[in-house]
Formats: sequence, C-alpha cells, structure tokens
Amino acid sequence: MSRVLTRAPTRLCYTPSCAMKFTRAFSSSLNGAIPAAKAKYVPTSGTYPKGFAAAGIFVGVKPGNTSKPDLALVTSDRPCSAAAVFTKNKFQAAPVTFSRKLLRARANAGLRSVVVNSGCANAVTGLGGLEDAASMARTTDQRVGSEDSTIVMSTGVIGQRLPIQKIVDHIPVAYHKAGDSHRHWLDCAKAICTTDTFPKLMSRPFELPSSPGIEYRIAGMTKGAGMLAPNMATLLTILATDAPIAPGIMASALRHAVDRSFNSITIDGDTSTNDTVALLANGAAGGTEVSSEQSEDYTVFRRILTDFATDLAKYIVRDGEGATKFVTIRVVDSATEESARAIARSIALSPLVKTALYGKDANWGRILCAAGYSLISAPGQPANDVPEIVPERTNVSFIPTDGSPELKLLVNGEPEVVDEERASEILEAEDLEILVKLGTGDKSTVHWTCDFSHDYVTINGDYRT
Amino acid sequence: MSRVLTRAPTRLCYTPSCAMKFTRAFSSSLNGAIPAAKAKYVPTSGTYPKGFAAAGIFVGVKPGNTSKPDLALVTSDRPCSAAAVFTKNKFQAAPVTFSRKLLRARANAGLRSVVVNSGCANAVTGLGGLEDAASMARTTDQRVGSEDSTIVMSTGVIGQRLPIQKIVDHIPVAYHKAGDSHRHWLDCAKAICTTDTFPKLMSRPFELPSSPGIEYRIAGMTKGAGMLAPNMATLLTILATDAPIAPGIMASALRHAVDRSFNSITIDGDTSTNDTVALLANGAAGGTEVSSEQSEDYTVFRRILTDFATDLAKYIVRDGEGATKFVTIRVVDSATEESARAIARSIALSPLVKTALYGKDANWGRILCAAGYSLISAPGQPANDVPEIVPERTNVSFIPTDGSPELKLLVNGEPEVVDEERASEILEAEDLEILVKLGTGDKSTVHWTCDFSHDYVTINGDYRT
Repeated sequence: MSRVLTRAPTRLCYTPSCAMKFTRAFSSSLNGAIPAAKAKYVPTSGTYPKGFAAAGIFVGVKPGNTSKPDLALVTSDRPCSAAAVFTKNKFQAAPVTFSRKLLRARANAGLRSVVVNSGCANAVTGLGGLEDAASMARTTDQRVGSEDSTIVMSTGVIGQRLPIQKIVDHIPVAYHKAGDSHRHWLDCAKAICTTDTFPKLMSRPFELPSSPGIEYRIAGMTKGAGMLAPNMATLLTILATDAPIAPGIMASALRHAVDRSFNSITIDGDTSTNDTVALLANGAAGGTEVSSEQSEDYTVFRRILTDFATDLAKYIVRDGEGATKFVTIRVVDSATEESARAIARSIALSPLVKTALYGKDANWGRILCAAGYSLISAPGQPANDVPEIVPERTNVSFIPTDGSPELKLLVNGEPEVVDEERASEILEAEDLEILVKLGTGDKSTVHWTCDFSHDYVTINGDYRT
Repeated sequence: MSRVLTRAPTRLCYTPSCAMKFTRAFSSSLNGAIPAAKAKYVPTSGTYPKGFAAAGIFVGVKPGNTSKPDLALVTSDRPCSAAAVFTKNKFQAAPVTFSRKLLRARANAGLRSVVVNSGCANAVTGLGGLEDAASMARTTDQRVGSEDSTIVMSTGVIGQRLPIQKIVDHIPVAYHKAGDSHRHWLDCAKAICTTDTFPKLMSRPFELPSSPGIEYRIAGMTKGAGMLAPNMATLLTILATDAPIAPGIMASALRHAVDRSFNSITIDGDTSTNDTVALLANGAAGGTEVSSEQSEDYTVFRRILTDFATDLAKYIVRDGEGATKFVTIRVVDSATEESARAIARSIALSPLVKTALYGKDANWGRILCAAGYSLISAPGQPANDVPEIVPERTNVSFIPTDGSPELKLLVNGEPEVVDEERASEILEAEDLEILVKLGTGDKSTVHWTCDFSHDYVTINGDYRT
C-alpha cells in the first residue's frame, strides 16, 4: 500500500493554466447534435410572454469550449416582480449570495433581467468572485438602463474564477442579439446547459379568472443532468410570465411550485452550491393585478406555475446523467406529507433500487428496505419509533404507464408471488411508477427519479479515459 | 412510451419455483478462489477464545448453490453473557425480531450459540418466517442441551421463506462438525458470506488490568459487501471472547464499539432488514469478572473491542461491491461529534465524490459540496443556520497513506491551486485519507468508505446479462 515517491512533494503552482488543468470542466455535449431519443423533448415552436427578450451567445467561458453558447440573457422591457429559490448548501456560490441580497434589497420589485453563464460556477471564489457576479449584473443593468435590476446565475466548475472581462465584454452583444422568437429562447436555453444532452425549454398560454379573455403566457428553461437532489442541485431555472403578479406574493407562489417540482426530483442526491430557480412577472399582457394570496387568481396562478415547473423538472430527470429509466415514485396514505416525502426520496436515492431498475430487476425487497430506513434515527442516536410505517399495512406495486393493471408486489406486508415475466415486461418500458401505500394516514407525495447506469459512473468518473 | 401488451396481465403464481425465479439470490463468489488481491486479508492461523467451537457447512439454502458453505454455528461449552446491536430498519427480518426478544428475555445472560444461514434473509416472511427463526434456534438449543440460548441470523434474498426442513436437518451436522481450530473458524466465516469475495475473520489476544498474566482472546467474523450504510446493512458479525464480562455491561460496550466501527463505514448507504452484530463472552479463560462500567477493566475491554471491531469493519470496506479504493474520511475541529459524523457520512455517500475517487479525480469541489449540504434542512422545510460549517474556516486536504506530506486543496475557504500531478499520484494509491478541518470546535470523527465503480453497477444491476 505504501508507495515510495520519487518526486518532490506538494508543488503548488499558481498560474491560471495550472488551475484550469486541475479543475477541469464538465464535458459539454451540446456542441454536437441532440441525441435522437431526446429530440422529441425539444420544442420546435412556442408562445412566449410579451415584453421579454432572450439571447444565448458564445463567449468561451470554459477553455476548450469553442462553439457552444455559454452566456444567456432574459430581459424585460419593463420592471418585473421577481422571486427566487436558492440552494441551501452552506457553500453558496457568489451569484447566489449576490442575487439573494439583490432580491431582498429590491423587495422583489423592479427587476429586469437574468444573466447566466455556464462553464464556471463562480463558487468558492471569495470576495473576487462576489465582485465578478456584481460586475455581470452591473454591465447588464447599464445596457438595460435600470440600476440594481439583474439576477445572476452561474453553473460549471467550482473553485475557479470567471474570465470576467470576456463575459463583461459579451453582455452588450447578448443584449443586442436578444429577441422574442422561438429561436432566441432556444438559444438561451442552450446557453445555460452544461452536461445536459438537450436544452429544456417550455412555454404555455393560460388564463386567470378575473381577467377573462386575456391570454397570459409563461415560458421557462432549466438545466440539470447530474448532481441533482430534492434540495435542487446544479439546477438553474428561469421562469418568465407576462401576467401581472404583485411582488408580495411571488415568493410564496414560487416556493410552493418548487417544493412540488424541482425539490421532488432526484438524480444522485448531490445538492450544489449554485442552484437557483428565478421567476419574473412583467405584467405586459395587462389585466387585473394578482395581489392577494387569498384570491382565486392566486390559487389558479400557483397551480399553473406548479404544473409548469413540474413538467420542466421532469425533463431534468429524462436527462439524468446516464439515465435509461424515468421513474415516478408515489407514496400515499401517509400519516404526514413530510414522512411521505422522506420515504419517496429514500427510495429514489437508494443505489440498490436505482441499479435494480437499470437491470430491469423487480427487486421489491430493495424498495421496501429503502422505505424501512428512511425515517430512522442517525447512527449513534437512540432508535426511534417511526409510527408512519407499519409493516402489516404496507403495500407496494408497480404501475405500468401503458394503462395495463398494476402488478402487486407486497400486500399488507405479505409478499406476493409475482409473475416475473409480467414484471420484466413492465420494467422493459422507459417509464414506470412505483406505488407505496402506507395505510397510516391520508397524505401523499410524488417524486421523480431515474436509474443508475454504467454511463453515470463513466460520465462522473472517467474524465481521464 | 405506451406499449401494447399481447399477453394476459398480472398472472400471479404461487409455486415455490416461481418465487425462486422472481426473488433471485445473490451471486455467490465464494464457490471459487479468493481473488489474488484479497488473499492477504485472509488469515492463515489464529488464536481463538477458549470454550468456543465453530463450524461452517454446506446445506444448499439457495437453489443453485451446490457447494458453498451456507450454515454457520458458533457455540460455547458454557453459558455466555451476550449482547447484540440490530438494524433500525422498520422492516425487520424474522431472525432480528426473534433474537432481540430472546436477549431481552434472558437479560443478556445464559446464551450459548449463534446459528446463521446465508442465501435467504428470512425477511418480510410474516408469522411463518418467525416460526422458522424460532425453529433454527430450538434445534440448536436441543443439540447444545440448553433452552432459549441461541441467537439467529440470516442473510440473503428478502421475501422468500427458508427451506427450513433442510436447515433444521443440517444443524445437528454442524454441531457435530464444530471445532476450535483455525480451519473450523474459517469455514464458519465463509458460511456467513453472500456476495463477499473473501471471508472476514480475525482473532487477537489481550489482557485486562485486574487479571495480569491471563491471556484473553477475542475472535470475530463479519460479512458485508454491498448494501451497507452507517446504520449497518446486510451486515452480520459474530464476536466471541473468553474474557469474563458480566451481562449487565455487555450492551453498552458493544454499542460503543459498533458506533465507532460498523456504524462508521459506508458502501452505498443502504441499510438492510437483517443487520446484526452479536457479542458473546463465556469467561472460559478465568480471571476477575468485569462487572462495572466504572472499572478500568471495562474501559480497557471496551477499547480493545472497539479497535477489534474497527479492524473487522474495515475489511467490509475493502470488499465493497466493485470497490477499487479504501478511503478514510476524517472530520476534525467540529462543534459536535454528531455534526462531524453527518458531514463525514455525507461525503462518503455522495455518488459524485465516489465516482471522482474511482476516476482518480482530485475534485475537491464535490467534497466541499457534499459537506455543504450535509446538515441542511429537508426539502420543503425552512432553511436552517448550520453554525457547524463556516466556509472561511474550512480546510480540505488529501493525506497520502505513504507518509508523504498532505496535499492542501482548500485553506480557510480559499481554493489552493493544486499540482494536479501530485494529486494524481496520491489518487493512484489504493488507500487515501480525506481530511476536513471545520475550525468550529474540538470534536472529530473518522469514517471509512470505498469508491463507486462500473463494477458496482454491474454487480447490482446486471443480473440478467
């Protein structure tokens, strides 16, 4: 085990090129074509919210990136209400610190733009990194002509400073190129991607009860791939609507939507330093302002926002690093929603469940096992009671997505002797639902995840081969 | 996505052969030779505790197993003090329920034997399964001539009944074959294995302060491989000593040892339905009984037990499914031991950290990221403060195991520009230590884990290929 080293130990070098070599960047798969199997998830047209313009241009943030767009801008021709949900990771990236402070200072009003770079996370970069984030915002503000109005996001490698001059020089170019066509929004969605294999863009019209006849629109883009957890992870999302939503109710609507969408998906359980979901509403479509959480408009908008965010979040699962399966985990009849969520998350994160799904193995024992340890106390702590799970009341089934009958695996704690051919058939499909009935209450949750494949290990481990 | 099914849905079949086909068993790698790289971990001799006999014989619990020993027995020629630590998984296997109840009923005194089968976990098997566990114990009791004196353990596939008649018929054979030689103990250690690639057996002499001149002995065997977490997992351990330890202090000594050994290792974070660590002390070597937790003897014994259990636990990490690395994660200068443990576990469990280690990638950003989300509140819960982690006080280093200087990666929250060649060199070795200094207190912890390789996915996903 002990090796004799023949060279001098710990030579630290401080040149930028050496730093680059050490903190090598994500592989970017968007230089080339979108995989055939994923092309169906990329829209060819859209209906985008009025008053917004979008752009995605090439800067070359990451050395080695010679063509992939890596600077994104979404900007409104008038002030917006805005809110954002940020990562809880204790090591927060500079753009997170900057944007959080900005939204607080502006009390969620008067925002105009979101500027994003991919290829470098601007995380663990100290005071210099904070100044870089501020400088991205300031440059955007100057072009837009509105002070303190730009939210900043970054995604990519941790521990490396941004090539800030390059970025700042290109922000005016992005502003100049911004437009409201489908092509503009798609370029923008591409520019925020890292290891994603396809851009994730959606748009949708909707109505609000008190403004009948007005067609509102919501558009959104997200990026994900690996490093993703219920608490979000290298996950950036921009949501924009032309509905008139008052600043005071933006945060609660977004928090509700994010908990049920981006916080209800997992790829590998890792939660990044940079996660941000931002929502902008500019009111450009007119109509009555939604200003009270007690109004019907608010309830409707919140539901539309939640559904929209959920559909967008599912794209991230579809693009999980190395994923071959799209798995819905539904936990019902739970004593509390919180315990239902913890159980679903535990099943979704279990490497044994994930590899069994990859191997098309109907191993319900692993599902049960992951449920069984989801609520237990930490090692070294006294055992707790976990009344939320009662083995004799627990049911587990596979729900095929083709509408054929469910396949019961465990009924009231007793294993079914399962027709394995039927199980294989269900597991052959890309989509699958695992249903867990707890029988201890009436709360429920739904969670989406993918499987764990050889390719996940290759993507995340084999940088050098 | 929707597929038309051309055959009848959900045909349930209730024949045993169908159940076998569905709940296929672990692959058993102990039929053949022990891999060359692992042979060094298997002892060729040992000093075993007096008064104990061990056996490992072939029964054929799992259909398809035609030669691997799968029934293990450790028995004492006199009554033992005994204690056990069991899984906290809410779905507890029948042998866990049975043995827990037995130890409580006996108040940790008067035990004689541990009987173990591999190949079938006897978990999620209802009342019938409980009766099977009781029947294994009763049969052993009858041979030994002592009622209610046998602890039972099982490991293998969940949801399948034991071939109990076969097992019960072979228990007298095991008793008959039991002996105190190294060969007997090694056969026994082999019989408890499932996907393990080598048997994990250790023995060690020791002394106690108040009985100078007496050589006490402790021997132990364990099994692990995949499905392993800080809260233990398909982990079975038998520890036996001829020191005279009073029943009343067995549980506290074992709990202390397990928290610092078997509960401080992770393979994949899954915690099984069957985990059991049992300790027997028969006093056959004589000397003064250790009966008070305040005595020096107790302190010394607990330390010896903890060290022994730790070394045994490390073998499990060495044999992690698909593992290519043995990684020590040391978290120091922490505000509390509990938070240090949570941080170490979070780093150990991060698939991104584990795949980076496999890929020999000095990606300290992933280490930091895993530390940063280790103590945060669950999704949907308000953000918490996490005073245990202060970015500006955090240090991360790689400690080479060859005694060469540490490689600093992060110093007081600022990234070092690291010599990548030196990092590669360190990551080339099988053993590596990750040191995280929090700078927020004086508590510390140490945790052992392995990497995540292609082979892990193959072992756990590719049953059918």
